[in-house]
Amino acid sequence: MSRLHLGRAPLTYIICQIIVILFFGLFTEFKKGADPHGGPHAEEVGVELIKNHYACFQDVHIMIFVGFGFLMCFLKSHNWGSIGYNYLVACWAIQITILWSHFWKQVIAYYEDPSRSFEKLPLTIETILEAEFGAAAVLISMGAILGKCSLFQLFAMSNFNVFFYTLNRAIVFQIFKATDIGESMTIHTFGAYFGVISTWFYQPKQAIEDKHELGKSNYLSDLVSMTGTLFLFVYWPSFNGGAASGSKQMRAVINTYISLTASVIASIIVSRITKGRKLEMEIVLNASLAGGVAMGSNADIIAKSYGAMLAGFIVGCVSSFGFAIIGPYLTKKINLHDTCGVHNLHGMPGVIAGIISAIVISRGGENFGDNYALNFDGTRSPSKQAGFQLAALATSLGFGIFGGIVSGLLSGNHNPFFEPVPVDHFFDD
Amino acid sequence: MSRLHLGRAPLTYIICQIIVILFFGLFTEFKKGADPHGGPHAEEVGVELIKNHYACFQDVHIMIFVGFGFLMCFLKSHNWGSIGYNYLVACWAIQITILWSHFWKQVIAYYEDPSRSFEKLPLTIETILEAEFGAAAVLISMGAILGKCSLFQLFAMSNFNVFFYTLNRAIVFQIFKATDIGESMTIHTFGAYFGVISTWFYQPKQAIEDKHELGKSNYLSDLVSMTGTLFLFVYWPSFNGGAASGSKQMRAVINTYISLTASVIASIIVSRITKGRKLEMEIVLNASLAGGVAMGSNADIIAKSYGAMLAGFIVGCVSSFGFAIIGPYLTKKINLHDTCGVHNLHGMPGVIAGIISAIVISRGGENFGDNYALNFDGTRSPSKQAGFQLAALATSLGFGIFGGIVSGLLSGNHNPFFEPVPVDHFFDD
Amino acid sequence: MSRLHLGRAPLTYIICQIIVILFFGLFTEFKKGADPHGGPHAEEVGVELIKNHYACFQDVHIMIFVGFGFLMCFLKSHNWGSIGYNYLVACWAIQITILWSHFWKQVIAYYEDPSRSFEKLPLTIETILEAEFGAAAVLISMGAILGKCSLFQLFAMSNFNVFFYTLNRAIVFQIFKATDIGESMTIHTFGAYFGVISTWFYQPKQAIEDKHELGKSNYLSDLVSMTGTLFLFVYWPSFNGGAASGSKQMRAVINTYISLTASVIASIIVSRITKGRKLEMEIVLNASLAGGVAMGSNADIIAKSYGAMLAGFIVGCVSSFGFAIIGPYLTKKINLHDTCGVHNLHGMPGVIAGIISAIVISRGGENFGDNYALNFDGTRSPSKQAGFQLAALATSLGFGIFGGIVSGLLSGNHNPFFEPVPVDHFFDD
Repeated sequence: MSRLHLGRAPLTYIICQIIVILFFGLFTEFKKGADPHGGPHAEEVGVELIKNHYACFQDVHIMIFVGFGFLMCFLKSHNWGSIGYNYLVACWAIQITILWSHFWKQVIAYYEDPSRSFEKLPLTIETILEAEFGAAAVLISMGAILGKCSLFQLFAMSNFNVFFYTLNRAIVFQIFKATDIGESMTIHTFGAYFGVISTWFYQPKQAIEDKHELGKSNYLSDLVSMTGTLFLFVYWPSFNGGAASGSKQMRAVINTYISLTASVIASIIVSRITKGRKLEMEIVLNASLAGGVAMGSNADIIAKSYGAMLAGFIVGCVSSFGFAIIGPYLTKKINLHDTCGVHNLHGMPGVIAGIISAIVISRGGENFGDNYALNFDGTRSPSKQAGFQLAALATSLGFGIFGGIVSGLLSGNHNPFFEPVPVDHFFDD
Repeated sequence: MSRLHLGRAPLTYIICQIIVILFFGLFTEFKKGADPHGGPHAEEVGVELIKNHYACFQDVHIMIFVGFGFLMCFLKSHNWGSIGYNYLVACWAIQITILWSHFWKQVIAYYEDPSRSFEKLPLTIETILEAEFGAAAVLISMGAILGKCSLFQLFAMSNFNVFFYTLNRAIVFQIFKATDIGESMTIHTFGAYFGVISTWFYQPKQAIEDKHELGKSNYLSDLVSMTGTLFLFVYWPSFNGGAASGSKQMRAVINTYISLTASVIASIIVSRITKGRKLEMEIVLNASLAGGVAMGSNADIIAKSYGAMLAGFIVGCVSSFGFAIIGPYLTKKINLHDTCGVHNLHGMPGVIAGIISAIVISRGGENFGDNYALNFDGTRSPSKQAGFQLAALATSLGFGIFGGIVSGLLSGNHNPFFEPVPVDHFFDD
Repeated sequence: MSRLHLGRAPLTYIICQIIVILFFGLFTEFKKGADPHGGPHAEEVGVELIKNHYACFQDVHIMIFVGFGFLMCFLKSHNWGSIGYNYLVACWAIQITILWSHFWKQVIAYYEDPSRSFEKLPLTIETILEAEFGAAAVLISMGAILGKCSLFQLFAMSNFNVFFYTLNRAIVFQIFKATDIGESMTIHTFGAYFGVISTWFYQPKQAIEDKHELGKSNYLSDLVSMTGTLFLFVYWPSFNGGAASGSKQMRAVINTYISLTASVIASIIVSRITKGRKLEMEIVLNASLAGGVAMGSNADIIAKSYGAMLAGFIVGCVSSFGFAIIGPYLTKKINLHDTCGVHNLHGMPGVIAGIISAIVISRGGENFGDNYALNFDGTRSPSKQAGFQLAALATSLGFGIFGGIVSGLLSGNHNPFFEPVPVDHFFDD
């Protein structure tokens, strides 16, 4: 047996895991249908919650671990670094999202009513669905710095990311009462700009130079990556509709489904126009999913399906041109090295989705008639609600950028503490 | 930035997509549990529909994009052409199946009662499940010409395919009132013979010659293909049972499950008998699934499970001998170049399934007793219903063959409009 | 056409399959919601059973065929032998588990009340979920001898395995009335020790020597294997919770989910400590799943989630050290050649899980209060129930070891009947 490699990283992981176990012991309890002391009513609630949400939860769970995991496998010599880190980072993000999310909810509840006493964190199926969403935000940010950072840096980044993600989410949903069912703003926009800003702290020039030519895909790695794309494509309706129920959920499912088919077709058209007859893999692998991002803020509030199809088509075109033209241009002009192109798939489509949601809501009175109050905050006019959507977009952008700077400053490649990857080992397992 | 490649293909795609968006805008509306103007009852309907069908819908969705996609990846140099085209063609087929399906339903309803006024296309979860079925028919036909055609040709083919598929389906279900829960006849038989007939329009002699020896699998491509086989195997019970509910659904699920285990065992036996100890990959990859096809018309109407097991075993043997002996024989004798062997997996088993369904139904009185009217059209005798099953099989075959000829004539390799693939690039990405 | 290869193996398969079809014909019937003669009540039961269990059943189904199948693909030249045999063996195990399971249930019921008449085997969704569990036990045992045995030997082994698995299960659940919701003891412990004991009958010295160096993974095979790991990770909550409902199911889901995230983190810590900065793939691929095994006996009875997290963390560490240190040590000392390391992933964690369940139950009174009788046999005291848990662990171990010896003696590599693999073809397709 070789000697043991103790050091900063494993000790940090052990301490953090023990702290989380302690916090779970002190502050959480099974509730709502999982309660060991619940009566017959709790049993019924449990049965219903499982029936309503479990299948969607599992679909989202696959998206996080299989979908994101394989999508990031396009680098030809970094498959383990991609799918392995994805696995580990997502697990950590899940644990801390549960804790931080409840913390900020309590802070805001206290701020609104200081006489309120602390509530224990209720563990139900909704809690773990929310945890997956936190992992999604972290993984999107990870996509931008993939291959240029160590696992320890990703561990640090995920802590900053979840801190700001849960704070922003509490503001957007509890104070702004914005509608963002599949979280185009709070996950995609936030995560993408967090990641994009971070990239400047991970030696972008050297990454762009890519001396060993490893920052590329090959035939096989693109095929592996397609696995991720397909699982994300198939299960995205569950991502956007998983937390809803009734007509909101069914519209969310159908709109996301329809929007995605249109963005797939958009991606093939742009690939064909910009690159000729041969399929351009990078575009199809990524931009085809933009229709899912576009529906994140809109899936349940679009009352006519052609709107979803049109939005998917437009966002699919924007994202495809992002991969074909805008991305390379930004790389040249501002040294933006965004490994997975998260700005193209999550950033721009997320911003557009937020803007569309404001437009759709401003027409909410016509589209939903008597059901307006069922779908939105009934105490506000549609135009006021639209304003809050834009405010939600702005804070998501703001926290993303600010968080990315904080994370980059504290755990970027200039800081030797988090075991930065030497430039010679960029994009290499 | 390189110059833009505008041309016939992308312009056609753009125009078609815009037309579909317009048609969605003019003729569709959210209904039955997705209705934005529905009352509390609509909400309940939405909750129930999601609980009943959503998990199955997602399973079928995986089958179409991951199952079919990877199953077609067995060609060693055509993985992108297989899985990428599968992705794009399926999305297009979904969109137009929704529209054409409603069109033919309206035509037949009008023919039966001319005083009826036009109804808008209702978008519910059942609509999108039906759309997946349309994509399945297209992808089966695509399997026969895979590697010998361009994406633009596949786009053309999918339009002809969906046109005839939806027409045949409306006749089979609305006029014949046949029972075909998992659509052995309307999807598998139709799709397979559509594809097989088409192959003669895609230079079969040159494809058989296969000068560059690319029309084959290798170790890795067979493994990738296995991914597709396994997802199809696992989720097939959802394909056959997804549209049903209650005891019909549970029988459909269990019969399909049991039938598939028997066809897997049949495929290994025939592989062993014809090829010796080494697993013959092509047989196991494909013929093992024949038990699912066999249950397409029968899953819910077989009242005793040994019948499902026996049918799966027999069809598994037929399909395996198809791959081992019948297929190569037909290639030699009539120049049939069927890339994925859809005749063996979908064609013959589909026809057998239709015939079995007639036999099973002719004994429906004994098997279902008082519940006969619950499972079949109560106004018909079992033997009359059996006759309609055979009629359904005949029209499915007929539309398949006729549609395949039309599609081949208009978009085959002799027509330069749809960018045919030069023989030198057959089976190559 | 080449000549036909008839012989012992295919004839045995054919005869066995025909016998199973006969037994299905004679002894099974659709029941509980699948009954073709059921009234309106049966229809409702069918709808409810599908809603409650179908999604979980499908998740487990994926685990068996995709999860186990790909997990075993880590051998660089044995992918077909791994995933193909997994496919075939699992199908056979499913069929016979259904029959043997009912047989032993009837035997024990007769033993308890000899006046009872024979009941037909009821086919419902619960039957096929149980069948999957039988396949899991067989596949775990298969993991230990993978690459060193022929398909015919695996076929023989699966028959012995299912015989003992169903017998042990009947004793554990019907006589001991132990609680083992996800079957840590009856599947994982039983299957692992069955397999580990068998290995001595498959030329362990030659397997350890591994003359052609094929008993190893490479970069690509580890990536393929990761697919299996991820599907097992994601769907494990359905494995542990699939047979339950209400609050038991929700706790089972959440505890398994939380336990797994902790064992993933444990595996990365141990990998880091024992192997340094580069991810040690074997550890992450396997030990990260130990948290699921740990919850098999405990998922529903742990009333405080930190317990699940702590158990997952501890078992993850044990399993990881198993792969890093204990496994290699046993190989050296006692010639234990356990191809997939099932002792590390299923054996030790299974035993620990059983012991934990006894400890947890002994405190059941405090944790469940008035609901104790709802979650456990109300006629027994917690400490008595804890004793029965240990008895269940002991019989699972006992039947595993005894069954493994019987299976090894009768179908090991010294017996030419089952077509043993020559040492020169170990780990090679």
